[in-house]
Amino acid sequence: MVDGVVLSIDGMGGDSAPDIVVEGVEIAARAMPGLRFLIHGDSAPLNALLERHPGAKAVSEVVAAEKAIGMEIKPSQALRQGKGSSLWNAVAAVEEGRAHAAVSAGNTGAYMAIAMFRLRTMEGVHRPALAARWPAANGGYVVMLDVGANVSADGQQLVEFAIMGEAFQRAVSGKARPSVALLNVGAEDQKGHEEIRNAAQLIRDTGVDIDFQGFVEGDDISKGTVDVVVTDGFTGNIALKTGEGTARLVGQLLKEALTSGPFAMLGAAIATPALSKLRKRMDPGSFNGALFLGLNGLVVKSHGSANGPGYAAAIEVAAKMARSHYREEIAQNLQRLANASASPPEAQSAAN
Amino acid sequence: MVDGVVLSIDGMGGDSAPDIVVEGVEIAARAMPGLRFLIHGDSAPLNALLERHPGAKAVSEVVAAEKAIGMEIKPSQALRQGKGSSLWNAVAAVEEGRAHAAVSAGNTGAYMAIAMFRLRTMEGVHRPALAARWPAANGGYVVMLDVGANVSADGQQLVEFAIMGEAFQRAVSGKARPSVALLNVGAEDQKGHEEIRNAAQLIRDTGVDIDFQGFVEGDDISKGTVDVVVTDGFTGNIALKTGEGTARLVGQLLKEALTSGPFAMLGAAIATPALSKLRKRMDPGSFNGALFLGLNGLVVKSHGSANGPGYAAAIEVAAKMARSHYREEIAQNLQRLANASASPPEAQSAAN
Repeated sequence: MVDGVVLSIDGMGGDSAPDIVVEGVEIAARAMPGLRFLIHGDSAPLNALLERHPGAKAVSEVVAAEKAIGMEIKPSQALRQGKGSSLWNAVAAVEEGRAHAAVSAGNTGAYMAIAMFRLRTMEGVHRPALAARWPAANGGYVVMLDVGANVSADGQQLVEFAIMGEAFQRAVSGKARPSVALLNVGAEDQKGHEEIRNAAQLIRDTGVDIDFQGFVEGDDISKGTVDVVVTDGFTGNIALKTGEGTARLVGQLLKEALTSGPFAMLGAAIATPALSKLRKRMDPGSFNGALFLGLNGLVVKSHGSANGPGYAAAIEVAAKMARSHYREEIAQNLQRLANASASPPEAQSAAN
Repeated sequence: MVDGVVLSIDGMGGDSAPDIVVEGVEIAARAMPGLRFLIHGDSAPLNALLERHPGAKAVSEVVAAEKAIGMEIKPSQALRQGKGSSLWNAVAAVEEGRAHAAVSAGNTGAYMAIAMFRLRTMEGVHRPALAARWPAANGGYVVMLDVGANVSADGQQLVEFAIMGEAFQRAVSGKARPSVALLNVGAEDQKGHEEIRNAAQLIRDTGVDIDFQGFVEGDDISKGTVDVVVTDGFTGNIALKTGEGTARLVGQLLKEALTSGPFAMLGAAIATPALSKLRKRMDPGSFNGALFLGLNGLVVKSHGSANGPGYAAAIEVAAKMARSHYREEIAQNLQRLANASASPPEAQSAAN
């Protein structure tokens, strides 16, 4: 394995690649000294961009890829035809130990398919999950997972998500012991789907060592009631997109209100610095970087429409995870869960 | 049946009952001439309040109820002990034909349990659903259901929700032909849970006469991509609460930003009328009034924390539904669905 942290970048993925990719690498390289980058893609434009970004150039190596995967490519096509693409090569570098984590702003379905195919699921994890962050009223960011890797999850899989999400939140936020809850329609024990009640029971019964707070509801996500919100990929995807849509609606209405007449515009002009702060806090770029958790390798997905600073935020997630000890942290909890699931209920009772 | 529209009001339900209830009746009575009210509850305070609200007094009759149901009462307790309460009597007046619709800001679980017990489910409807409204970017309000009456729904039940939600949206918005879609994690036909795909197939196969637009995602709710968003009660409850939580977070951050220093405060002061408009648009009170659909009687739930104008908005929903022909409108579509579900696939094919 290489010295320091090496990140494997899909130079061609995203709405404005490769420009914003190299810009993001430049910003991240200056903010986090010690990082090195393998940038996969079309050498000529990548090298030209690096000439204009000396901070990135000093720590990057361009690795030529013969093609790029478009946004319209389906996951199955990506697996058949994707070999040799910048996305494929970015993942392959992680698999082959030449880099610690991959980052791409490209086609999500293709990325997940290639990552699952090349890196395979970790031992003790049945299904990987996509974990995203969301701003909370307490000033921090909540981790929510799964936000779309699977449409359903049984109780044991939800517990695996809880274990992985907790370690992810610790790595990115620095919190020693993030609190965790299951997303439900009420806080009472008898509420919601059977899978969720099973997951709560499993966490309590198996001695999984996390700060488990039971159930939370949809409005607790933005409140920041807990640090990690666990749900299946269907519910998580809808919650995340509903939240994004609402934030966008309020932003649009605010903009309309503040351009609706001379007084509103004057007021807005005077309050501009304060409003910019609000915009920055709710800007998806500032909490960009969804992590595809549960594979034998770190895989970070940037929003396709991220700008340079947004892409740098995704790189930061990859770097923090690469520098963390999350694999060791989750191994013990996954083992506790697997032991308990493997033994019959009688044996569990006897052991207690 | 009585002449005109009579609404049956739970005078004692809600955080600030009976004060805001009577205030809401006063506002609604002035805004919608021709309404009459039965207000159930403690006669002395209700009559005292009516003395101070002449608009309400002129069209209201106080019906003494011996008790009120608290917020801590469980649905099963409400069924056993609720008889004679203002909530119970408000529902009973609808059942007995003395009123066209009930309105309460009280205990939701108790209200739903009593309403189901007294009014029973309509013919052709397997499970009732709770339908709520949500502001959309196009200036209107989206109807979403189920937002919490059931934790799951099969394909046929989702179609029943679609039929009922469409008629609800027509009654409250006046739109002749509201568009309808199923909430999913992608727009493609093969995405999501089996129930959702089944529902889409059923709508297409059975000739249910609605403007069905297929699948929408979480961010389409606030966009107003369609007028009616159909989902199961688990997903709908989480989507609604996540949206509410996000709107509250942005509102809180905006308030913090605009009080963060002298320039921000000056700007905010100058822009106050514009900001008030935004606040009003996102105020849950302005789109208050969830409808419990699918029972033999109209049952409207106000937010427990609604103020007078918010309570009047819930009364408006009840009045509009009472004046609509939604029962006749949904009967034909429910019959189409029932016919198709009752006949074996061969018979369906032969009939096509």
